[in-house]
Order: sequence, then structure tokens, then C-alpha cells
Amino acid sequence: MDNFNFYSPTEFLFGRDRENECGAYIKKYGGKKVLLHYGGGSAIRSGLLDRVKSSLEREKIDYIELGNVQPNPRDTKVYEGIEICKKEKIDFILSVGGGSCIDSSKAIALGALYDGDFWDFYGTGKPVEAALPIGTVLTIAAAGSEGSGASVITKEEGMLKRDTCSDLLRPKFSILNPELTCTLPTYQTACGATDIIAHVFERYFTNTEEVETTDRLCEALLITMLKETPRVIAEPNNYQARANIMWAGTVAHNDIVGVGRSQDWNSHMIEHELSGLYDCAHGAGLAVVMPAWMEFVCDHNIMRFAQMAVRVFGCEMNFENPKMTAINGINAFRRFLHEIGMPINFEELGAKEEDIPKLVAKLGIQGETGGFQPLTAEDVTQILKIAVNAKVV
Amino acid sequence: MDNFNFYSPTEFLFGRDRENECGAYIKKYGGKKVLLHYGGGSAIRSGLLDRVKSSLEREKIDYIELGNVQPNPRDTKVYEGIEICKKEKIDFILSVGGGSCIDSSKAIALGALYDGDFWDFYGTGKPVEAALPIGTVLTIAAAGSEGSGASVITKEEGMLKRDTCSDLLRPKFSILNPELTCTLPTYQTACGATDIIAHVFERYFTNTEEVETTDRLCEALLITMLKETPRVIAEPNNYQARANIMWAGTVAHNDIVGVGRSQDWNSHMIEHELSGLYDCAHGAGLAVVMPAWMEFVCDHNIMRFAQMAVRVFGCEMNFENPKMTAINGINAFRRFLHEIGMPINFEELGAKEEDIPKLVAKLGIQGETGGFQPLTAEDVTQILKIAVNAKVV
Repeated sequence: MDNFNFYSPTEFLFGRDRENECGAYIKKYGGKKVLLHYGGGSAIRSGLLDRVKSSLEREKIDYIELGNVQPNPRDTKVYEGIEICKKEKIDFILSVGGGSCIDSSKAIALGALYDGDFWDFYGTGKPVEAALPIGTVLTIAAAGSEGSGASVITKEEGMLKRDTCSDLLRPKFSILNPELTCTLPTYQTACGATDIIAHVFERYFTNTEEVETTDRLCEALLITMLKETPRVIAEPNNYQARANIMWAGTVAHNDIVGVGRSQDWNSHMIEHELSGLYDCAHGAGLAVVMPAWMEFVCDHNIMRFAQMAVRVFGCEMNFENPKMTAINGINAFRRFLHEIGMPINFEELGAKEEDIPKLVAKLGIQGETGGFQPLTAEDVTQILKIAVNAKVV
Repeated sequence: MDNFNFYSPTEFLFGRDRENECGAYIKKYGGKKVLLHYGGGSAIRSGLLDRVKSSLEREKIDYIELGNVQPNPRDTKVYEGIEICKKEKIDFILSVGGGSCIDSSKAIALGALYDGDFWDFYGTGKPVEAALPIGTVLTIAAAGSEGSGASVITKEEGMLKRDTCSDLLRPKFSILNPELTCTLPTYQTACGATDIIAHVFERYFTNTEEVETTDRLCEALLITMLKETPRVIAEPNNYQARANIMWAGTVAHNDIVGVGRSQDWNSHMIEHELSGLYDCAHGAGLAVVMPAWMEFVCDHNIMRFAQMAVRVFGCEMNFENPKMTAINGINAFRRFLHEIGMPINFEELGAKEEDIPKLVAKLGIQGETGGFQPLTAEDVTQILKIAVNAKVV
């Protein structure tokens, strides 16, 4: 196990009706003038936004609204938010929505206290020095942004998707009411579940030895997701299954299951170019990339993939030929993704084989990436080629 | 799953040599004048205390020492600490030791900012309103106090052991260096492991349905402890096994695996009377009480005990007779405790059957306790009787 720091100071308020407490919690964390940031029409139609506003009004908290955050949130909306914050002396941002809305809120939060261009922090590793406090009311279990310091923004010019990360961007509080996710379309639910699973796998595939505790915790979350996701696909209003997925989504990404071990975020990195180019859902892109990535890298550590196959997918260990076990596990994963309605190849995603050179070029890999198995641009090309015609076996 | 709040703002610094950063972290959290609170001679002999002092001196932080915290920490030492804090205007407490030392520090922290008797908060549920900030350098993986808001103190008069809990008592930072635990005697190592396992079991046995995520996370920690504990017993200097146990110990008790479900702390409650009366190690008392408790309550939910047996202890499910599976699991647990050198009955613990009425009376149960299966005083008597002659099967 490697040395690490773990710090997750977000206060999580989980369960039915908790959104009605958001005003009180903003007050607790010192917010007096709030930017109320939200996504599309569903929060309005469901009455959620009204409940949130009532909660703010009960606490006599001033707010200014900024809605219409898009999936794969754009820099243009962030600039708009920053301008409002500076002009109106906003001191707290409340994000009502999913990962896109929270990521946009984080970008606004750091941009509001920075004199230059907020984009300076994205994809550069420049450390964040200050940010407005944020609270969230989560409407989809997926990105884990409600409990992380990470934010991913797409620059509209060139559709460049880049990220930043800082403890200063961790929300002060996050409200997780599983009921709010019951009205999600099936496809979005499955995309969210895929994203959660990917967050665990990106931690699971490590070169650090002797990480039994976090291995077992990762496997616990994966087993949970394999059981609960088909349940919510079949029964969208199943509160208990929604609740289990929602808490798994947070634990999967606040890093408590990923500390002390090298991680591999190459599937996420490759996927960002797919959703950057095609504006597809992040989870859908991951469903196409991740099993292809697994096939490409599994020789790097067959026994780790065999472990995944046995412990997570319940495959029988083939002691004579562990690689068969590894491959059975990867096939089981792709079958699972297909069964929950995810695309598993380029055609199903709406991607085109002839775009591969463009996708690879946009990654701008100099030499090799880091990770479980470092990848060259040619390796990424091979992974995307595996993804083109992938099939359920 | 039930509604819940989860809040764990402690910053964890994990790994080799991290104790050298304690001065810098006290500074980060605003400490200028520190009470340096520690236990017995081992921290002095190992040179740990000198390294800690050097770290404080490098940051020019003033400190006053208060050592000799006993296992099952006493109110008398707490009063001593409170007096120093008030007189010397201490603004930060640094705890160098195990759970006893941290619990003592928490009691001093709340007493230092309270006009009345600190004991008012113990066993009464009276909410803590203020406490000095605390940092810890942990020297044994066991109590989980480094990441929790809980504190247990023994009143010397009558050896009354009582607890309190508040988010205000959560340490600002906790330094976890597995190397510091390598010099622990085998018996203490095993006691610590037993305490960690008990913290998970007290969460695992729940009446809340549909808690797949936390069930799986609990099982992940238990499986880890079953694998890693015999390794450190056999190889005390195995850093990796020590590291896995240390992180498991923190995750087991900061409640991330226990939220949203009813819990059962009756085994802890019963054990407190044993260590109160005999001054035995808390883990040793738990090893005697917990399997006996399991035998007594398992009919309350046979399938949950069968789940434990199959998923944690690798027993085969007996589909015709699930109770046999449950009992096999309990027997496997007791066998495990015996194998790591824990006492499993009264004689091995140094307890006496004739003290049972006294032990039960001190619990002062009015009617029934809460928990998985509420217990009457007569039930506790039965549990202790099972424990008297328990054997490995």
C-alpha cells in the first residue's frame, strides 16, 4: 500500500425529503446570497426546484437563478455564472442536478474568486487556491461529483473536455434523495450506473501490491451495482435499489476505496474524447471503451482480471488457464452492460470508425499515458478498433 | 435503507513517516499551544514521542505534556488534563497513542470548554456544544477513535464505563503510520483486530432491510480482517498486512459502512462491564461476549447469520437447514478468535461465573435494551452463561 492522504469533509444528507433542508444547511455553512444553478426542465417539472426555493425562502436566503446546464457542461455557461457571482457578490453556490450541473458549479466556484480565465485550471494541474463554497441536491446517481473535488468541463470551441481536482471544490454538503432519481429515463439510469462501475474499475486496476482492504471494498461496490442496476431497470420506482445505487455512487468516487494504490483513468480519458466529439452520454461512452480497454490490457496482469472475474462476476476459476477466467470476466461485464441497455460498440453508440485518428489525435498523447498499463497513441487506436465491432459473447 | 447523515471531516495522513508532519498539521488547523497527551512508555522507548516533539518544535509550537493514560482510560486523568487546558490556555490537543489515549483526549477537549463536570456528557446523551480541536498519531489499529466522534471513559469510583459521541469530537487530522504498530505485542495486536471486527459486526446485524451496499462493504472489511490478522500474528513486521488492517480499522468505525441501517451495540455494552470489572483488554472481552451473543440471538434472523457464514467465513450454504449454516459461521468465528490467541470463555479471560449477577446489575437495564434483538437483564445473564464455558468446535 502506498502512503496517502484521505480527506472527505462533505456532509451527506441522505434519504427521502432531505431537499427541504437545503436552506438550513446553506445557512449552517454561512451562505447568504446564493447562485441557484440547475440543469434542464426536469427539476422544474418535478416540482423539485420549487421545493428548493421554498427551503431558501424559509431561511430568508437571497438567490439568483442560472439554469440550462447541458450534459457535458460547457465553458460558456461557466463564464455566465462567474460573471453573475462577481457582479452580484454571490457567496454560495447551490447546485440542483447531476454531475454536469455540479461540475459546472465547481468551475464557477473557482472562477468567481480568480482574476484570470477559469480554464487555466483545466487539464493543466494548476492548483486551485480559492473557491466559493458549494452545496448540491443530487438528481442522478452517477458522477460522484457530489462527494469529490473533481470537475470536468467542455470547451465549446473544439469540444475539448478537460478536468481539474481540488479539495477546495468538495461540496460543503450534498443532499442525496433516492426518490429524485426514480423519474429518470431508463437509459440515463443505466448510463449513471455504468459511470459508477467505471469509477470503481479505474481504481481496481492497479499496479500497487497488497491492497486487500481497498480491493475488497471495490469488489463490494461492484457486486452491489451488478445486483441493483437490473432491479432499477426493471422497477424504476424501487426506492431501496435506487438508495443502494446512490450511496454506492458516492462511496465509489470520494476515494475511500481508492486510496493508497495507483489508479488507471485511461478509459475515462479515452471516453472524454467520444463524448466530446459525439456529445453522447459519458456512461454510454464508457460502456463502449471500458471492456475494449480490458481486452487490450488484460495480459498486463492476468491474475488481477481473473480475480475480478471470480470475485465480482462469480466466474469459476480456471486453474489450468487463468486467462480464460479473465476473458470470461470481461465477457460477463460486456454482457451485463448490454443487458442494462448500454451500447457496446461504435455503431450502437453512434460513433464512426473513420473518426478514430481524430479521436486519438485530440488526446494529444506525448509518448505514453500513465496508469495500469501505459498507453501510446497506437495503443489507444487499437483499443478503439476493438470497440468498433465488439459483440456480446 | 433509512435516512441518515454522514459526516467524516477528519483528514487522514496514512503511511510511513507521516508522524513527522504532525507539527505542520497542527499549524494548518490553527493550534498554537498544545496539550501533548500520550499513554505508556512504548511511545517514549520507540522514539516516537521524540519525533513528535521535534515536529512541534520545528513549527515553533508550544506544548505541555500529559502522559500515562491507562487502558480503559480514567476520569481522574481527564480531570487533570482539563485543569491544564484551562490554566495554560491550551488551544489544541495532540493525542499520541491508541483508542484509550484518543478517548481521553476527546473527554479533555470537551471538558476544557465546559463549566460543569465533563462526566455530564457520558452515558447521558447530553449533546456536546463545544470542544477543543484534536489531532492524533495512532499507535494501534483497534478502536477507530481516530476517525470517529465517540469517546469511552471509565469512572474510577465504581469502575463505571460510559460513552459519549459528537461530530465536534472528530479529530481534525489523524496520522496513521502502520510501522508504529509493528512493535505491538501479539496479544494487543489480536485484541485490536477483534475490536475492529466487532465494530463491523455491530453494524452488520441490523433489522433494516435492503442494505446491500453497506452489507457488502461490511463483508469486505470482515474478509480483509480474517485474511490479514493471522498474517500479522505470524509476521509482526509485515508492513502491508499492518497497513491493510489499519485502514480497515478506520473505515470500520467512521460509519461509512454503517449508515442508513439500525445497528446493535449490545455486545460492546456487555463487554464494557467486563473490562470495567476485570480491567481486561476491550478486544479480549469482545472475543468472549460476541460469539455468545451470536448464539443467543441467531434465531432472530437465521438467514442473516447464514449470509455471514457463507459470504464472510466461506461456509457452504445448507439449503435444507440454514440454521446449521448459521451455527457453522458462529463456530468459525470463535475458532478464528481462538487461533489468533484471544480468550473465548470466562476462564481464559480471567472472569468469574459468580460475578454474572453483578455484571448484569451494573448494566442497569430497564426493561429491554435496543438493537437487533432487544435484551432483558435475564437475556444478558443467558449470554454470559453461554460465554462461561464456550469451547472451540
